[in-house]
Formats: sequence, C-alpha cells, structure tokens
Amino acid sequence: MINLFLIGIGTGNPKHLTVEGRLAIAEADLFLIPHKGNDKSDLADLRTQIIADIRSDANIVSFDMPVRDAAGPYIDCVNAWHKAISNIWSEAIANHPNAIRIALLVWGDPSLYDSSIRIAALLNPVPKLTVIPGITSIQALTAAHGISLNTLNAPVTISTGRQLRDHGWPLNTETLVVMLDGTCAFQELDGADYDIWWGAYLGMKEQVLEAGNLSETTPRIIERRGVSKSSHGWIMDIYLLRKRSI
Amino acid sequence: MINLFLIGIGTGNPKHLTVEGRLAIAEADLFLIPHKGNDKSDLADLRTQIIADIRSDANIVSFDMPVRDAAGPYIDCVNAWHKAISNIWSEAIANHPNAIRIALLVWGDPSLYDSSIRIAALLNPVPKLTVIPGITSIQALTAAHGISLNTLNAPVTISTGRQLRDHGWPLNTETLVVMLDGTCAFQELDGADYDIWWGAYLGMKEQVLEAGNLSETTPRIIERRGVSKSSHGWIMDIYLLRKRSI
Repeated sequence: MINLFLIGIGTGNPKHLTVEGRLAIAEADLFLIPHKGNDKSDLADLRTQIIADIRSDANIVSFDMPVRDAAGPYIDCVNAWHKAISNIWSEAIANHPNAIRIALLVWGDPSLYDSSIRIAALLNPVPKLTVIPGITSIQALTAAHGISLNTLNAPVTISTGRQLRDHGWPLNTETLVVMLDGTCAFQELDGADYDIWWGAYLGMKEQVLEAGNLSETTPRIIERRGVSKSSHGWIMDIYLLRKRSI
Repeated sequence: MINLFLIGIGTGNPKHLTVEGRLAIAEADLFLIPHKGNDKSDLADLRTQIIADIRSDANIVSFDMPVRDAAGPYIDCVNAWHKAISNIWSEAIANHPNAIRIALLVWGDPSLYDSSIRIAALLNPVPKLTVIPGITSIQALTAAHGISLNTLNAPVTISTGRQLRDHGWPLNTETLVVMLDGTCAFQELDGADYDIWWGAYLGMKEQVLEAGNLSETTPRIIERRGVSKSSHGWIMDIYLLRKRSI
C-alpha cells in the first residue's frame, strides 16, 4: 500500500526542517515537486535544495501545476483544481510502481491553508497518509518579532485576506492573524484602533519586517510590498493585528 | 550583552526538534530547566534528554518553579508569578557571568500560550531575545488525525478551556481549537452540533486519539482522560471542534 508523506518544511529557512522531516526525506522512494511558475521558481528550487542537502540519490518527478479556472463559483473552481492536481499525482505514482513511500514537501505546515490533505483524499486508491508538521509562517512571524501570538489566556483568530475584505473585523476578536492577503485588506480598518506586526519572506535571507500602530505603518508596508515584489517577482507575507484596548 | 534563546522543542517527540533548535542547543552557554513538580518530572527529564542527545558538556541550572498564588484576581496572580520566575532566571544568569547565550527549552512554541516571552521582558537588564519556533500541540493534533486545521478559506479560532467554559461557543466560528482545558469544557456544548478531534500526549509514545461526533465521543474522551491521568500522573491534551453545517 502506498504511504503518502506530506512533509512540512517551514517557510523557506532550511533550518526550519525538523528531525522527523529530515528522516522522511531520507527514506522516501519518490518526490513529487510542483513547478510554481517562473515567478516563483526559487520556491521550487528551495525544495530540491532541501532534498539535495540530505541525499543525492532522490527520485524526483516535477510537474506543472494546472491553472485554476477563475470563471464560476470559487468553491467549484477550487474543487476542480484539486481534482486536476490529484490526477497528476496519481499518474506519477502509477508510473513508479516500485515506489511505496511518496513524499511531497509542503511550504509551512500541511494542516494550515494548504490543499495537500484534501488533494490526497481524492486519490484512488486512497493512500495511507502521514503528515509531518512544519513551522508555519505564523510562527516565523511571531518569532521574528519576538511576540506572543495570544495575550494572556485570550483567544486568537486566524483568517484570510479574503475574509477580512468581505466580512471586516471578526466580532469579539482581539488578535487576528491574516494569511493569503494579496491586496492589503487591512486598509479597510480604522488604523488608529489597531497595532500590526507584518512580515514577508519570513525565515529567508530576504526577510522584511514592519510593526507599529496600523495607521502609521500602513504606508510603509504598502511601499515595502511594492519594492520587494518587483525586485523578487513574488511576495509571501502575513500579519498579526491586535485591537488596542479601549 | 546576554542573548536569551527561547527554543521551541515540540510536544514531547524529540524528532519535532528543528535544525535551528539543535544548533541553538549546541551553542548555548547555559540552560535554565524548571522542575515541573514530581507528577510531571518526565517532562523535565525530556528536556535534559534532548540536550544530552546533542551534547554531553551542557551547563544546566535546574530550578523549582514558584507556586502561583490562587487568591486574588487571576491576572494579578499570573503577573506576580511571572515576576517571581524572572527573579529566579536573573539570579541564575548573575551566578554565571561568563554565560552569554542562555537557553530555555520551551514545550511547543514560545509564542503560543507560553509565558517565557513575557517573563523575559521582566528581566533587568532586558536581554536580546531570540525565539526559535517549535511544533505546537495544535500541529501535532492535526497531523496525528490527518486533518486540516481550517476548512476551505475559512477562519479558525484558538482558545482555552477557561474561555469556552466562561463564554461558550464563540460567535461566527466554525472551527475552534481548545488548549489548556483541565475540565472538559466541551461538555457545555450541544454535542449533536459538533465534531471533535481530541488527542493527549501528542507525539509521545503514550499518544491517544479520539474523533467523531461530540455526543458520541464525549464519554470515551472522559474515560480515556481519567485512565491516562491516573496511570501517568499527569495529562496534556488538546482538541479541535468543528460545527456541523446546518
């Protein structure tokens, strides 16, 4: 029976890899590595570099990610996209009948805003799944700023840029972490009421950080995002917002 | 200047340690290791074992944790307790004037429901702080169950047993992770409306898991908690609740 390993590799710092992750990479029979498109090719390179640091004999299948259809309801488009990816995985697995331990290297942690677990469930036959946690961008963000995620005994909400844009600040929330925000949704908020801790390329040598009252920090973040994105060709960023006590 | 390293070590599986965490342990001049009291001595042992696996020449100061006063407002008691711990750290650091890199091994990740960052801020002089993220019990839980933390593009709330007990299910929340719950606060909910994924001793050889509809799973969890707690003398558990679509 096929055992599919989803290995969280952290946020781009090879030192985020856990002992468990290293062992799984050392023992895998086959790696499936997506091309991310030219603008993010350094991310695919990072995966192959992490493998090469551990072993020189890895069996790697690279594949082009299908394009997600933007016409139609969001959920339907995502589901069709996941099915297309699972078909590619199935074909690669079928082409390597001796490979039992199949590995995917997942940015961050496979459980957090990542589709690999859902895509794996679409495979036929369904493989045995082994998830290996990895350092998330949330953890890289709080570590870089030297802050706690939560205030004392208080809850934390993790959400997306789309949610913040469409639904505003969630009720009864003091701390909000926003991921996957390509459009700086924090601009919708009244900046005087919030503090922000922002970071991009977390854990990588390109890491940039900004923190302060949201009103004062917003222009700096928008400028740094623009400059960084044009110089690197891509950006991955995340931020934590905390509502000021009134 | 003193550099204080807060090193996340994961949830009890030594394989959770990251490359970054291993390096920091290899290079530290002094380790501060709390005794957790007799019932949790295997947790303190685990810290010394992790260090011993990396080096045999470590300089370790063990200290007794002060007892938190339970009389008075919760926040005041916690603040006084943090101050008492920072005094112990200060004294240990002062007793080792040649130690520049001081390390604490923190269960899980120093940013998540852990006091080390707050205690470090009370030290005088304030040291340079280096936070090294570690695998949290949330990640160990979702990995063990092979589930995603979030549903597609949806938010997630992380909270405590005390919050769930005092304030009930948070508004507009589909997914709730509950930490630090010694009293099974999920019993307050209408079990038919929720699914639960529960785990204790995550990542350790003693790991136990339960999952299913909350109504059906509650008696099993309560029984397993009781049995495990009496056989080990302590328990650390966590759970994820998901509201069923109506």
